[in-house]
Amino acid sequence: MRMPMGFSYAATYAGIRKVAKDDLALIVSDAPASAAAVFTKNRVVAGPVTVARQNLRSSRGRMQAILVNAGNANCATPTAEKVAIETSRATAELLGIKPNQVLPASTGVIGVPLDARPVVDCLFRLKETLDPSRFDAVASAILTTDTRPKTAFASIKGDKTTIAGLAKGSGMIHPRMATTLAFIMTDAAVTPAALRTALKQAIERSFNRITVDGDTSTNDTVAVFANGASKFTPSAKDFNAGLADVLATLAQQIVRDGEGAHKFVTIDVTGAATDSAAEKIARSIANSPLVKTAIAGSDPNWGRILSAAGNAGVAFDPRHADIDMQGITVCRGGVAANFSEEDLKKKLDEPECAVRFNLRGRGRGKTRFWTCDLTEEYIRINASYRT
Amino acid sequence: MRMPMGFSYAATYAGIRKVAKDDLALIVSDAPASAAAVFTKNRVVAGPVTVARQNLRSSRGRMQAILVNAGNANCATPTAEKVAIETSRATAELLGIKPNQVLPASTGVIGVPLDARPVVDCLFRLKETLDPSRFDAVASAILTTDTRPKTAFASIKGDKTTIAGLAKGSGMIHPRMATTLAFIMTDAAVTPAALRTALKQAIERSFNRITVDGDTSTNDTVAVFANGASKFTPSAKDFNAGLADVLATLAQQIVRDGEGAHKFVTIDVTGAATDSAAEKIARSIANSPLVKTAIAGSDPNWGRILSAAGNAGVAFDPRHADIDMQGITVCRGGVAANFSEEDLKKKLDEPECAVRFNLRGRGRGKTRFWTCDLTEEYIRINASYRT
Repeated sequence: MRMPMGFSYAATYAGIRKVAKDDLALIVSDAPASAAAVFTKNRVVAGPVTVARQNLRSSRGRMQAILVNAGNANCATPTAEKVAIETSRATAELLGIKPNQVLPASTGVIGVPLDARPVVDCLFRLKETLDPSRFDAVASAILTTDTRPKTAFASIKGDKTTIAGLAKGSGMIHPRMATTLAFIMTDAAVTPAALRTALKQAIERSFNRITVDGDTSTNDTVAVFANGASKFTPSAKDFNAGLADVLATLAQQIVRDGEGAHKFVTIDVTGAATDSAAEKIARSIANSPLVKTAIAGSDPNWGRILSAAGNAGVAFDPRHADIDMQGITVCRGGVAANFSEEDLKKKLDEPECAVRFNLRGRGRGKTRFWTCDLTEEYIRINASYRT
Repeated sequence: MRMPMGFSYAATYAGIRKVAKDDLALIVSDAPASAAAVFTKNRVVAGPVTVARQNLRSSRGRMQAILVNAGNANCATPTAEKVAIETSRATAELLGIKPNQVLPASTGVIGVPLDARPVVDCLFRLKETLDPSRFDAVASAILTTDTRPKTAFASIKGDKTTIAGLAKGSGMIHPRMATTLAFIMTDAAVTPAALRTALKQAIERSFNRITVDGDTSTNDTVAVFANGASKFTPSAKDFNAGLADVLATLAQQIVRDGEGAHKFVTIDVTGAATDSAAEKIARSIANSPLVKTAIAGSDPNWGRILSAAGNAGVAFDPRHADIDMQGITVCRGGVAANFSEEDLKKKLDEPECAVRFNLRGRGRGKTRFWTCDLTEEYIRINASYRT
């Protein structure tokens, strides 16, 4: 698959993080692109989120550059917005575009002022090194506690147009909305309105269906730029499917790289009254620390799954609940099924875990959710994040 | 302080748990007592919860005995209700009281059938050993992952009437309602209706204000028996205060003994629009794994507290948010305050942690919430609970 045309990338170390590892990145489209984005639903939002929202609105969804840093969230400081505006403006000036065509984004520690100076000082170097091949460098520069970069690609109608996405995220992952940072580039010719619709649909079945620890960050941003360089306008169906595919792959990579995670867990809920009821049940199971620690310990403790479902705030009759783990029925009609604990324990040692919760034909509501196990490493990572 | 008159207690090992430690207990009032109880709000409820609810209703709040076991939740098995009914009936017969005057309760593993036989076989021994002095034996018999028993006492008007409570709980602790098992005995002469009102009020400021891990069990039961043996009817104000005191002390003991907890955390939220808004913010902070791991690591990472508050689903302006940790202002008006991280780190090593979140005079809504830190031990305990 070829990369989307008309985009170039650069990354550098601006001294924002303590370790000398790239922490500032720039993504530029050759021409103004249709842009759409979704942001955190946290009431406390970072400076770059406020500015990105404003720019997206005032440019009517026509943007050209993304400036992103790791190591500092630029949030809850007296200068947060000012720094986001200042660095976006400097980027626009250097690239010869309008300030509202720049989408700023940040990730890292909250509450520590971000100094605009080193960021601005690095912009010229970033511009000089912009290159269509440096996609991977950007994917690495935005990482924080992540252990590996996350990228995903899709092509439509045999490379007539392609989509490339990169994301970061490992902790503070919760499916209230976007969750974490992700940037998706495509050379499809799509209007801002069509892009918004596609993003909204794709988010619902990807970033809104994952959880690591139930915390939503102040900086979550998922943005898509479509620059039309391929001169090809895919059908809405094809484009939405491609975008959904890229987002789902990125979202799953985030869960796989969940802080301290050893196991990737897929939760399917079926037979609920509505999709929304199914989602609430899946979310409650996916967020239960008792379910997640049981999976970490390969303990087929299905009672915790049933109990977590019972806490979802959704009315259902436990006597209709069937639960499968790794394809083995552990609970039928709300009570223990006949199964070999030994066999299941062995299967739970595998790196992938499948949980099915079926309300047995009480409705057609269903959903799929992804989460990870909860291990001692999660605690170790987060008890000393800043030190 | 003297113990409430007219109650006797017994505990024994019925072989329900694997280790030979008392797992079955009986509490009996000499005469029928006014009874009130609150139960789990989980949609999946254990057999004894269903039966206790029915008995409480059909006896119109006049009960005489509590039969409780640890080691098995008697939940999500084909026989759950049947076993709860059978063991309650056998207890009633032996004591010469009506079956609906027995309140059954269970705690332990979900989904494993509880055998009625060994329970019934032990009833005679329990009855023979009933003694007013064996309160502590019952407090120990109901424990599961708890590391110590939880008891609390209050006296009203210089021992004119007294209240004694015992509770268990360490994990699966969440403030949706009762949470875990607690039994409170008093010799006050109080009607069932007055008892219900007092319990409802006391629960709100005790068991509904604590969290360990955000999970609500299928077996939560808090029951109060008032047998009138003191022949003293306290004023509603005095009785409610005494009961609230006992419940708050028990609730705090549960948090202090939270699975793997090293630190006891008190969260005060003030200045919110309403008490309910304050409660939502406090709950969100108290449940955030990122806040709880930061406290475990003595990391003054107040950004996580602000972010957790922002996720509470309550509208507030972060620019009015002040945060104190251990009496040191770490955030003022939504941005970092000037403080010594070194000093605060040292203070966070203490076993008690105080967090204050103040929306600075935007309203009079306030609440107090209790939680604990989240440590690697929590994971160790829960990854292998059944093995």
